[in-house]
Amino acid sequence: MPTYTAPTRDMQFLLHDVLNVTAADIPGYEELEADFTSAVLEEAGKLASEVLAPLNVSGDREGCRLENGVVRTPKGFKDAYEQMKAGGWMGLDCDPEFGGQGMPYLLATAVGEMFVSANMAFNMYQGLTHGAYSAIHAHGSDQQKTTYLPKMVEGSWTGTMNLTEPHCGTDLGLMRTKAAPQDDGSYTISGQKIFISAGEHDLADNIIHLVLAKAPGGGEGTKGISLFIVPKYLVNEDGSLGQRNGVTVGNIEEKMGIHGNATCVMNYDDATGYLLGELHNGMRAMFTMMNEARIGVGLQGYAQAAVAYENAVNYARDRLQGRAVTGAESPDGPADPIIVHPDIRRSLMDQKSFVEGARAFTLWSANLIDRAHRNNDAEAEGLISLMTPVVKGFQTDKGFEMAVQAQQVYGGHGYIEEHGMSQFARDARITQIYEGANGIQALDLVGRKLSQDGGRHVMAFFEIVKGFIKQNEGSEALKVDFLDPLKAASKDLQSAGLYFMQQGMKNPNNALAGSTDFMHMMGHVCLGLMWARMARAAQAALDAGTGDEVFYRTKMATGRYYMARHLPATAMHLARITSGADTVMALAADEF
Amino acid sequence: MPTYTAPTRDMQFLLHDVLNVTAADIPGYEELEADFTSAVLEEAGKLASEVLAPLNVSGDREGCRLENGVVRTPKGFKDAYEQMKAGGWMGLDCDPEFGGQGMPYLLATAVGEMFVSANMAFNMYQGLTHGAYSAIHAHGSDQQKTTYLPKMVEGSWTGTMNLTEPHCGTDLGLMRTKAAPQDDGSYTISGQKIFISAGEHDLADNIIHLVLAKAPGGGEGTKGISLFIVPKYLVNEDGSLGQRNGVTVGNIEEKMGIHGNATCVMNYDDATGYLLGELHNGMRAMFTMMNEARIGVGLQGYAQAAVAYENAVNYARDRLQGRAVTGAESPDGPADPIIVHPDIRRSLMDQKSFVEGARAFTLWSANLIDRAHRNNDAEAEGLISLMTPVVKGFQTDKGFEMAVQAQQVYGGHGYIEEHGMSQFARDARITQIYEGANGIQALDLVGRKLSQDGGRHVMAFFEIVKGFIKQNEGSEALKVDFLDPLKAASKDLQSAGLYFMQQGMKNPNNALAGSTDFMHMMGHVCLGLMWARMARAAQAALDAGTGDEVFYRTKMATGRYYMARHLPATAMHLARITSGADTVMALAADEF
Repeated sequence: MPTYTAPTRDMQFLLHDVLNVTAADIPGYEELEADFTSAVLEEAGKLASEVLAPLNVSGDREGCRLENGVVRTPKGFKDAYEQMKAGGWMGLDCDPEFGGQGMPYLLATAVGEMFVSANMAFNMYQGLTHGAYSAIHAHGSDQQKTTYLPKMVEGSWTGTMNLTEPHCGTDLGLMRTKAAPQDDGSYTISGQKIFISAGEHDLADNIIHLVLAKAPGGGEGTKGISLFIVPKYLVNEDGSLGQRNGVTVGNIEEKMGIHGNATCVMNYDDATGYLLGELHNGMRAMFTMMNEARIGVGLQGYAQAAVAYENAVNYARDRLQGRAVTGAESPDGPADPIIVHPDIRRSLMDQKSFVEGARAFTLWSANLIDRAHRNNDAEAEGLISLMTPVVKGFQTDKGFEMAVQAQQVYGGHGYIEEHGMSQFARDARITQIYEGANGIQALDLVGRKLSQDGGRHVMAFFEIVKGFIKQNEGSEALKVDFLDPLKAASKDLQSAGLYFMQQGMKNPNNALAGSTDFMHMMGHVCLGLMWARMARAAQAALDAGTGDEVFYRTKMATGRYYMARHLPATAMHLARITSGADTVMALAADEF
Repeated sequence: MPTYTAPTRDMQFLLHDVLNVTAADIPGYEELEADFTSAVLEEAGKLASEVLAPLNVSGDREGCRLENGVVRTPKGFKDAYEQMKAGGWMGLDCDPEFGGQGMPYLLATAVGEMFVSANMAFNMYQGLTHGAYSAIHAHGSDQQKTTYLPKMVEGSWTGTMNLTEPHCGTDLGLMRTKAAPQDDGSYTISGQKIFISAGEHDLADNIIHLVLAKAPGGGEGTKGISLFIVPKYLVNEDGSLGQRNGVTVGNIEEKMGIHGNATCVMNYDDATGYLLGELHNGMRAMFTMMNEARIGVGLQGYAQAAVAYENAVNYARDRLQGRAVTGAESPDGPADPIIVHPDIRRSLMDQKSFVEGARAFTLWSANLIDRAHRNNDAEAEGLISLMTPVVKGFQTDKGFEMAVQAQQVYGGHGYIEEHGMSQFARDARITQIYEGANGIQALDLVGRKLSQDGGRHVMAFFEIVKGFIKQNEGSEALKVDFLDPLKAASKDLQSAGLYFMQQGMKNPNNALAGSTDFMHMMGHVCLGLMWARMARAAQAALDAGTGDEVFYRTKMATGRYYMARHLPATAMHLARITSGADTVMALAADEF
């Protein structure tokens, strides 16, 4: 059985040494004293390790079952869910007006990593609820907010997102689900939605479905789409549950992973729905959920890699095979632990340096979101808009790759289900697909975000990198190992951007054929910047002699690995990009 | 349900346009006229598409069941197995003296790809039998050969390889299974083996286990290991089946994929075994199986990518989402097929150019094996020894990656099991692990094969590349698109080799920390060479106007993609390698 140990120390380092949160001048951040965040993270880590993690393998094996229209979650999920509710974890960063604790999104993100690492399928019930909460909070009427939010914040009701239909996922303009207006101002919703995570289950009293549908008069394509609140049970005026709504689960999918979360076919048969936000402007409201969900999925990607890495390290320390090439390290034992072998270390360092870099990048992004929301900081808003596809696409591609590498450390024992390593890979795999497959993230980045607001946000990012390098050029500890590689990688990224501007003008395929490569380049530059920032903070702590020397030295060494061994990928991506679209688009569709 | 179409046209191109088999001056190759190979491949393709492929998804879902010591294979497997037997496919390249058809290994390899693409789990029953056949054929006594081989060649009996024990996989020196000599010259074998593919099943009358065990007097480590034949049923002198031997299946593993093949825990309790080959020299005999198995696993890697790619193309042609950025391609339909999108094409071309390159590399390798065995060609023997870890390690890493990319083309429909795309990824995953995890392949390549016979074989490989470039430098069709990138990649590979020689001398970790990167570099150079060769052949056919112009033009275009978009990886691997072992080995084991 895999174990899970929460990375509290690393998160404290990021919050306090790197992001320096209490000095950040963001409303709510003044509460984030080191003692307080430490207490919260310790508590969350305990719940994750002791309650959620032990249900991960069993939840995967048992899966969800559909019985007479009711979905049964795996054994133990209900109890664990009650403990999450009792601890107030659901509403950690929710509005106090509706019962939330009003903590910064940053802190909720750190806590979220722990829950996701411990049990991703379980955590999705809560994660989707949070997304639906955010959409209602941002776009709902006062009456909608008071009706739904308090129950969702406490976790008594959960939420879902209903976008996909059998014939349409990415291209929502093809949507067929219909909303017919009724005399009382409500709508009747009819149609079928698929791939609805947590669409039906036995953890909560009610499920609040947010459903995209076409109401009359909206015109063609995505412009005609509106967003509706469709509760499983209608809610009476006094807040009690009324009659069952016309929404039923048609089936649950057999899938590669996240078996503990029910992926449902949802049938809407003249279900009662209530317009959320503006008519025919549902995409805007849905994107409130979607952007949050994309950051959350980017987190899932590296969080699965994180727990897989932890177990790979444990296994590599215990498993005895062969001898160190430089001489036996345990001469009295029958063999050395496999962690002595350079290729095992190469794999573990690939994982470790990615996971810690991605954790920094995700918390940095969460910090941007707090800045945008709590300070109305337009620059932060622009920057996080630019970064969202990178957080989602890059971190999930790499997160899966690293979970697979962790599984590989186990050899044959990683392929059998007994040790749980296969599950980390299978669960991580979905993160590359849902909330916009990663090709869509790359398209969003290159086709939309790069040129958004006249390219201002990407220029701002380059300025941040340049400014950091300039500011720290005098540091011997940083210059060769961190700043020089970061500069080279950033230059590659700028060259690619320039190529897109020049050649994409002539033919947009020249840009789009390089979109996935660009997303990965940018991810590497972002993690490179994070590592440079972490190295500066670690070096400062070492210089100041604040203690915990091993932690800070390890941080420096891990960063050096990232710069030396991950960052060279940018040159490869640049070469792929600048080879242009010709070889990519050469074949006719029937020549493949 | 996925479909499977055998790549007969592509194989014919490789056999006749590229490898020019009938002119090859290898005994047996004179039979390989185009009409003959076409007929064999067509027939094999029919069996693969019509009999094996339809059992792939159902075999995965049903899996194998252990009932009262008997393993039941999935529904339909027994019938399909009988058809394989009836067609004589099991013994295609086996010795006619024992009932085989004596065809070259090359042809059997082409046929093997089809069977593996169609149903990998099913094909393993046969594949392992072939490996056991080869070991007995190479090392058995006359009596052993006549006792076991005819039944194995016809498929009435199957075979297994028993190496791994719970505490030892890679490091066989730790083995505990014991062989005690008996007065009649046989041995009694006692111990437990795990991860035994096809260890027990209901397809054949008898199972011939080849078991590594320690016999007294052999000393420590792998030197003391011998190989034994342990039949499930003892064989009477007249060839009929005698009493049940002391070997039983203890359990079958739950695993990530290849559910149609039973992965068994095998218990040997005073089982009767017969020494195969020399006492205390079992590793040598086992390597006969292992080298063959490693080429076979390398084939599995790209064969899964091949069938996954075929289905991804079909889906991309059918699935309608969005519009081509350069203007609608199906303006009358509701949307364009996703194959119009550059990032989908990038993915499909990544897959296609890898699969076809790997197919060429595998058949080229099979050709080397024929040269080595049928012509006693020492140079070919050395070259294939060098290439074996590359075929296995590179092709399975990339094969899995490409199967995952094919799954990605399906979006959410790839994650659910309904379409079978998850299975291709899950099945492909084992190929990176078994028959020596890929880190072991990299170690074998860098730690052993590079310097084997004074480095003669890798120098021979570089000479082949150099010779090809020189010979074709005058070709305008090849120069810029093929030869220049091949030269650059080959130079990167040589630089890495030089770095290993210089820095590995000082510290072997400098070489081993770059072993996986080197294996991948070398794989790319090999596939680059294959593409250059294929391009030359395709261009020659185009110049000669032999017809089938679309096929040859497509081949050239696919090759250009590989050179432009895969080969730039070599520079990244070189940068990783030359960063040395310092960052890789920096941490103490408890600092991870």
